[in-house]
Amino acid sequence: MRMLINVAETVVADALRGMASAHPDLVVDVENRVILRRDAPVAGQVALVSGGGSGHEPLHGGFVGPGMLSAACPGEVFTSPVPDQMVRAAAAVDSGAGVLFIVKNYTGDVLNFDMAAELAEDEGIQIAKVLVNDDVAVTDSLYTAGRRGTGATLFVEKIAGAAAEEGQPLERVEAVARQVNERSRSFGVALSACSTPAKGSPTFDLPSGELELGIGIHGEPGRERRPMMTSGEIADFAVNAVLEDLNPSSPVLALVNGMGATPLLELYGFNAEVQRVLGERGVSVARTLVGNYVTSLDMAGASVTLCEMDEELLRLWDAPVSTAGLRWGR
Amino acid sequence: MRMLINVAETVVADALRGMASAHPDLVVDVENRVILRRDAPVAGQVALVSGGGSGHEPLHGGFVGPGMLSAACPGEVFTSPVPDQMVRAAAAVDSGAGVLFIVKNYTGDVLNFDMAAELAEDEGIQIAKVLVNDDVAVTDSLYTAGRRGTGATLFVEKIAGAAAEEGQPLERVEAVARQVNERSRSFGVALSACSTPAKGSPTFDLPSGELELGIGIHGEPGRERRPMMTSGEIADFAVNAVLEDLNPSSPVLALVNGMGATPLLELYGFNAEVQRVLGERGVSVARTLVGNYVTSLDMAGASVTLCEMDEELLRLWDAPVSTAGLRWGR
Repeated sequence: MRMLINVAETVVADALRGMASAHPDLVVDVENRVILRRDAPVAGQVALVSGGGSGHEPLHGGFVGPGMLSAACPGEVFTSPVPDQMVRAAAAVDSGAGVLFIVKNYTGDVLNFDMAAELAEDEGIQIAKVLVNDDVAVTDSLYTAGRRGTGATLFVEKIAGAAAEEGQPLERVEAVARQVNERSRSFGVALSACSTPAKGSPTFDLPSGELELGIGIHGEPGRERRPMMTSGEIADFAVNAVLEDLNPSSPVLALVNGMGATPLLELYGFNAEVQRVLGERGVSVARTLVGNYVTSLDMAGASVTLCEMDEELLRLWDAPVSTAGLRWGR
Repeated sequence: MRMLINVAETVVADALRGMASAHPDLVVDVENRVILRRDAPVAGQVALVSGGGSGHEPLHGGFVGPGMLSAACPGEVFTSPVPDQMVRAAAAVDSGAGVLFIVKNYTGDVLNFDMAAELAEDEGIQIAKVLVNDDVAVTDSLYTAGRRGTGATLFVEKIAGAAAEEGQPLERVEAVARQVNERSRSFGVALSACSTPAKGSPTFDLPSGELELGIGIHGEPGRERRPMMTSGEIADFAVNAVLEDLNPSSPVLALVNGMGATPLLELYGFNAEVQRVLGERGVSVARTLVGNYVTSLDMAGASVTLCEMDEELLRLWDAPVSTAGLRWGR
């Protein structure tokens, strides 16, 4: 057990206390497990609420702030938050313009956000929902019916967040979010398993010298296991897997995402190979983001997410954002 | 070997190519190993140049940009850059207002920056130097005579960078940098060793269930090895070690820094404990930064850096910065 924790039972509460003291521009309700923009509700703006199991930081709490999420609901590690958290978040951030729930496609999250939507609507809050399901690696897996939601979640939260920030109405913000998801695809690889605090040891067995192609963000099995490959070979495999399912005719937004324990030095080197493959495939790149954004605790590995952009989506991507995990433009 | 690389020999060049394509606002000279602000030299501004071995990303290349460094010189992994890189960087960014070299206290870096300063002065560039030596864990170690330079490097680069950005003269920027270093102290712990690409396996042996207190950023030995401690116990040890050597009478700037492979979830939880200890010791906190900023490849662990602030230093810390690794305020 090589974890910087007190005991497994308090990991999420401890992290929320630490977020609260580091980020005075957030309201962190440790007891009720809700992270809010301090200035919420913002008059005239649609509010964005997301959430999911903890262990993927900075997703989602690190993306709460002007230009992105209004609130996030962290569950226990790799466990869906409960409807109460989502209803509480929605009530706290709704200005009357309605709330968009951004839901990664995992069975627990989908059920709980559905239930929360009903409860919130009973309280008179207008709710729209968008499901993120960008991972091309597998259909159906340990936690999911259909495709898993992974790296594109960041794109949906950022771009729909920019639309909300400039006052677009709920149906338009929802349409933008849906469009971003439809235009996005991801593929991830693991070079090591991750260890949850509760288990204290790797969640699956990945022998040294092998890698798992098509891994999920909870260590769910991927497509296949192979002997270790070079960064260039992995980029070929991952980018081609994405492009089997996405045929972009306009420049893409690229996320080269670390799973948590892969050093930035390696991620940048991997990005060079991703860009090489994209060039070879004739795909031009409008923007690239490299870093640990949608993680799996201490897993080593990386994922590639591409989104086919247009002028309007690019404008919204470039719009100012001010969160703990993503910040630019003001 | 669980690395996302091609071969050890090209790790730094690959990473620089990846940085170049992700950050069009940087000029990355892959062949000569220099990373520059695209708008350098900036008329009327002192330029800041730093550098050191690779493997500590985002330090230093990720801190090049408006409000922070003008240029960075990455060496091979855990190996000092050479004087040629530093002279080339200084010549590229000097506007005539002079250049400040920011040097972490490691024998190779100190020698090479000294030589580079002489060579640059021969070319008519005015050079000042500041040595960063904030690590209270040990005096003298594997790579260092005196104290090692670690987390405070980020503070020096950010705060002196803000002074340069507003047009302060070289002697003033140097004085600010020196002041920040003198007011800063750090202490780090490792929960695992790191693996360099060249070696392909851990650089030292740290049995599971033990931790190394007072680790350096290259895995140099610390003060002592102990059976695993809780996050709270580690915070007690680290903060008290810092406060043995720093007795702040005004609010501090705190960096709770990950060594590379420690998840953000754990770092925030550790921050909660660091803040608890500071409170118990009567130290008030002006600003807190939590994240992986001064890393040691894939090492698990964390460090705490405190800097005793005053109004002017706080104003410079809060000033806008726009780099790949640190960005706020515009």
